Amino acid sequence: MHTIGRPRRGRGRRPADEVRREVIEAAGELLFEEGMAGFTFDKVASRSGASKMTLYKWWPSKGALALDGYFKRVEPVLAFPDTGDIGADLRAQLHAFVHVISDSPAGPAIAELIGQAQTDPELKAAYLRRYSSPRRALAAEAMERAKQRGQLRVDLDPETVIDQLWGACYHRLLLPDQPLTEGFVDALVTNLFDGIGP
Amino acid sequence: MHTIGRPRRGRGRRPADEVRREVIEAAGELLFEEGMAGFTFDKVASRSGASKMTLYKWWPSKGALALDGYFKRVEPVLAFPDTGDIGADLRAQLHAFVHVISDSPAGPAIAELIGQAQTDPELKAAYLRRYSSPRRALAAEAMERAKQRGQLRVDLDPETVIDQLWGACYHRLLLPDQPLTEGFVDALVTNLFDGIGP
Repeated sequence: MHTIGRPRRGRGRRPADEVRREVIEAAGELLFEEGMAGFTFDKVASRSGASKMTLYKWWPSKGALALDGYFKRVEPVLAFPDTGDIGADLRAQLHAFVHVISDSPAGPAIAELIGQAQTDPELKAAYLRRYSSPRRALAAEAMERAKQRGQLRVDLDPETVIDQLWGACYHRLLLPDQPLTEGFVDALVTNLFDGIGP
Repeated sequence: MHTIGRPRRGRGRRPADEVRREVIEAAGELLFEEGMAGFTFDKVASRSGASKMTLYKWWPSKGALALDGYFKRVEPVLAFPDTGDIGADLRAQLHAFVHVISDSPAGPAIAELIGQAQTDPELKAAYLRRYSSPRRALAAEAMERAKQRGQLRVDLDPETVIDQLWGACYHRLLLPDQPLTEGFVDALVTNLFDGIGP
């Protein structure tokens, strides 16, 4: 079913699940094209063919709707590879991630949502529950499998590594003292695998 | 000169530098006691004995004033130790940092300011120029000295390490999926010095 961005107004009642999926897809497209500055309930309604009333019923704020659109959109792009080589898998995933947040309006948009979440407890809870927590779990599971293969030390806490890879990238996204490049993420992985000592 | 928090209204005209310093000290105290929720120009004026007019003249927003108060307040707490052992110095500095952002209203306050900076370009520029950039420089210089002593590999980019230590902490502060503890920062340092491989 690829009906993204094609208004279907007037084609009769669709099942709620289908409407919901199309609204989320439309929200993701709009967010990636225009960022939060151009993101409105109106435009999502018009793109998806759903009524604004429906949108208001399902999403408490445009932040929550934008988050759902973002998640839907990045999910396939940020799939966690599993080639059997954890170092290569981490690099590949981080390259895809940095590409998304550097080269599309999604980066500024997610920065703005994280920013807004600092004074909006519901948005923060939604972010943790629906996005960052499940994504952390995927990375942690990949590292646990790598431990089984003897590629990571057995006493390693994968959660700390997550903050030293993706967390380091979010830090540069939010506070851009230094650039967020592929060279940067390669250095992050190298620092952890080779150590920073002499 | 310890006149922090003691209104000096009515004691005659003070030099601008002194007024400015006392306003910033009062702002830092208020921020640490009440966080951004209780932070107002009014209260800073009353604590410092300066007029609200003066405050509006010097600071474009309460965010900018709160930032200056934060920087002033954390500067002595977050001094970078130099014992000649970079591993110990990093741990000591990170422990002080985590203590400040976990155990005082300064943590939520700085999270809120970073959040607000995502939609306030002036606040973001002020944050980078007046706080994060000079603080990164201190850490980078400490690591360069450690390279000279043979404690870090010579091709290491200290900027990447900064994002993997303090950046990782800010990540947990802003998106608290996992707790920000002393054990966490010790693990960050260990991961980098010992590596995460088997």
